[in-house]
Amino acid sequence: MDIEAKLKEMGLTLPNPPQPVAAYVPAVQVGELLFLSGTTCYEDGEFLYTGRVGAELTIEQGYAAAQQTALNLLSVIKATLGSLDLVGRMVKLNGYVNSAPDFDRQPEVINGASELLVELYGERGKHARTAIGVSDLPAHIPVEIELIVQVNS
Amino acid sequence: MDIEAKLKEMGLTLPNPPQPVAAYVPAVQVGELLFLSGTTCYEDGEFLYTGRVGAELTIEQGYAAAQQTALNLLSVIKATLGSLDLVGRMVKLNGYVNSAPDFDRQPEVINGASELLVELYGERGKHARTAIGVSDLPAHIPVEIELIVQVNS
Amino acid sequence: MDIEAKLKEMGLTLPNPPQPVAAYVPAVQVGELLFLSGTTCYEDGEFLYTGRVGAELTIEQGYAAAQQTALNLLSVIKATLGSLDLVGRMVKLNGYVNSAPDFDRQPEVINGASELLVELYGERGKHARTAIGVSDLPAHIPVEIELIVQVNS
Repeated sequence: MDIEAKLKEMGLTLPNPPQPVAAYVPAVQVGELLFLSGTTCYEDGEFLYTGRVGAELTIEQGYAAAQQTALNLLSVIKATLGSLDLVGRMVKLNGYVNSAPDFDRQPEVINGASELLVELYGERGKHARTAIGVSDLPAHIPVEIELIVQVNS
Repeated sequence: MDIEAKLKEMGLTLPNPPQPVAAYVPAVQVGELLFLSGTTCYEDGEFLYTGRVGAELTIEQGYAAAQQTALNLLSVIKATLGSLDLVGRMVKLNGYVNSAPDFDRQPEVINGASELLVELYGERGKHARTAIGVSDLPAHIPVEIELIVQVNS
Repeated sequence: MDIEAKLKEMGLTLPNPPQPVAAYVPAVQVGELLFLSGTTCYEDGEFLYTGRVGAELTIEQGYAAAQQTALNLLSVIKATLGSLDLVGRMVKLNGYVNSAPDFDRQPEVINGASELLVELYGERGKHARTAIGVSDLPAHIPVEIELIVQVNS
């Protein structure tokens, strides 16, 4: 089954690719590596949530924000490559969590993105990862996630 | 017109490349990818500014610090490759902004670097990007920026 | 002398490779680049330290945590490649330091990792680097370090 069909079967919808809010582009490819810009939980041009996980937001909301962010990353991949099926491997994901002081459960938040990629792509979806807490993010978004993808040639 | 001539025409000067302050090197190339160390707003061996954007510094000062940081990154590229004209593509820029609590306009700060790269290199200067806020940076610098560059062969 | 023998001569021991605590894998290789997940100062399944450098921990403890983290990164390299001798070059290291407010000496902390890599690998160990301060990290660990390695073919 192709990846978009699988997404639909999971009841998830690919959003429109996010438009950069500043002087950069959504993705740049060099050889077989596609570098995606950090993005967040856009949904229909709004943010699904804003605020810090552990303060204004629960872990569950942070997880949902990370999942929505992964959908936005997938929409960038599709817009760049033409198809989600051209992903050879999800290589490296970095997740930055807008964290309340003393909030230390960033991995559970970023799992919202990681688990979606693995569920969709299986072995090809298993990626290296870094998850850290930060004191604030642009527009008080709860998560920002960037991704490196290997493209099939 | 070559890139250094364009810089001069813009009234900007390439600084001396920053010397790492610890156990690392300014850049490492693997194949066509050049990975640059995180650097900051050095100017004649001093920092252009120190402090947090949104507290000790304004957004305009943060923007100027990011532009100066981009000049330092360019000086590393020249020292490594021999010429700024050997850049095939600016690939990925990560900008860390030393942010006051609740400061959330990091993209406007990092634009100081991004807009310079695009103005200098045109299409080749358009890069993927991540901008985040952090609670502090080495020596209280306002920004730290790292870059991945594709080198023409 | 091979790298593991050199480690032993330095009185250091390669730990068991850390097991990811969430939905990701320790490392992914694409071509000659090996991307390692962010990891920390595991020692026999415990953390060598937890807490913020500049508050609960001294710089010396942060340095020791970064060195232990480098040993864990090396254990992942060995588990992935089969031998530490297959490293062509340490390319890029990013170090995130769990920092007390106003703590700005992150480079001295991350040197605990960088100096070990250079001592072990000499010229091949010299890497590009970014060191930043963050407000918190998963499980209150003091440092999180990720690494890109060039693999000999």
